[in-house]
Amino acid sequence: MPLSSTLLENAVDQLATLPGIGRRSAMRLALDLLRRDAGAVHRFADAIRRMRDEIQYCNVCCNISDRPVCEICSAHDRDKGLICVVEDISAVVAIENTHQFKGLYHVLGGVISPMDGVGPEDLHIARLLERVAEGGVKEVVLALSATLEGDTTSFFLNKRLSERDVPVTVIARGISIGGDLEHVDELTLGRSIMDRKPYEQAVRR
Amino acid sequence: MPLSSTLLENAVDQLATLPGIGRRSAMRLALDLLRRDAGAVHRFADAIRRMRDEIQYCNVCCNISDRPVCEICSAHDRDKGLICVVEDISAVVAIENTHQFKGLYHVLGGVISPMDGVGPEDLHIARLLERVAEGGVKEVVLALSATLEGDTTSFFLNKRLSERDVPVTVIARGISIGGDLEHVDELTLGRSIMDRKPYEQAVRR
Repeated sequence: MPLSSTLLENAVDQLATLPGIGRRSAMRLALDLLRRDAGAVHRFADAIRRMRDEIQYCNVCCNISDRPVCEICSAHDRDKGLICVVEDISAVVAIENTHQFKGLYHVLGGVISPMDGVGPEDLHIARLLERVAEGGVKEVVLALSATLEGDTTSFFLNKRLSERDVPVTVIARGISIGGDLEHVDELTLGRSIMDRKPYEQAVRR
Repeated sequence: MPLSSTLLENAVDQLATLPGIGRRSAMRLALDLLRRDAGAVHRFADAIRRMRDEIQYCNVCCNISDRPVCEICSAHDRDKGLICVVEDISAVVAIENTHQFKGLYHVLGGVISPMDGVGPEDLHIARLLERVAEGGVKEVVLALSATLEGDTTSFFLNKRLSERDVPVTVIARGISIGGDLEHVDELTLGRSIMDRKPYEQAVRR
């Protein structure tokens, strides 16, 4: 049955575009929003709009940041010779929560995925190579999801980084194969950072 | 760990106010929105804002509607003597999908819930009594949730409607069609035994 209001219909359609939200859930969310006062709904819509319009990225690590150089990259007590390569900010948050890593990050903005039309040129790989070329980097730790796309990206990065004579390590496969990084528990993720291995050792059968 | 961006933080906070969405899911939704182009995110935010600002309600049944009198209330082939009382539009959609009801609706906008500070005066009950007072109503069907709040509301409505001499019925409670008997809760099963019907009546149609 079509809904009795195109305004409601549109809102439900839009909410249903969110990952993991079906039309039934979208309807529930829309009705919940309808019950709130107008000011609260404006704050909701504006927070999303402003995030998309005004968000900035750190000039060094490409992470989402409100400053030109993010807090982690400008901290004095972190090891600037150690760079941990991750997919997105949720991986940074997850790794920070383990308290096992005191280096800097590099946020790729995704992984290589031909199926989704994401190639190496769509990721912040050039900036990573630049950071290595600037010198002082003693180790690059690859901390990508243990998926086909993550492994492909790690393979590609190791190849490019090896040409630049920088040791490349991979976080230990304590994390479950096929799992998304954001769903790994902190203990396993922390252990996998402690147990990282040289790339050549990590990928041998 | 606090996020590196207050813009992202705000968006995640707002998304986490939605029912059933925790902070982790909210982060996933925010990152998904961030990956879309600006136009798509504007359409998303605007659909929600416009729904809240411009939505209207049917003057007769109080359902969400783009017209002063909704499609169902203005239809010529529906029984105007039969009013089904429901909580919200999602119940209307669910009942319409059964194709078993050809009367009109009355949308209360919720149920009486002292815990949430919702009293009878917060619901569209006065308008329901008005409709009955206008005459021509042969039966009011109460189709509220089988919860403490739903039952309280049904009790209250039956009392007020009985004073107006209109027959009040309640939708049947019992085991669900196609359900295993061993998975039915005791209350429902007990109720379905008390409300048993002659076989010939139960299997008709």
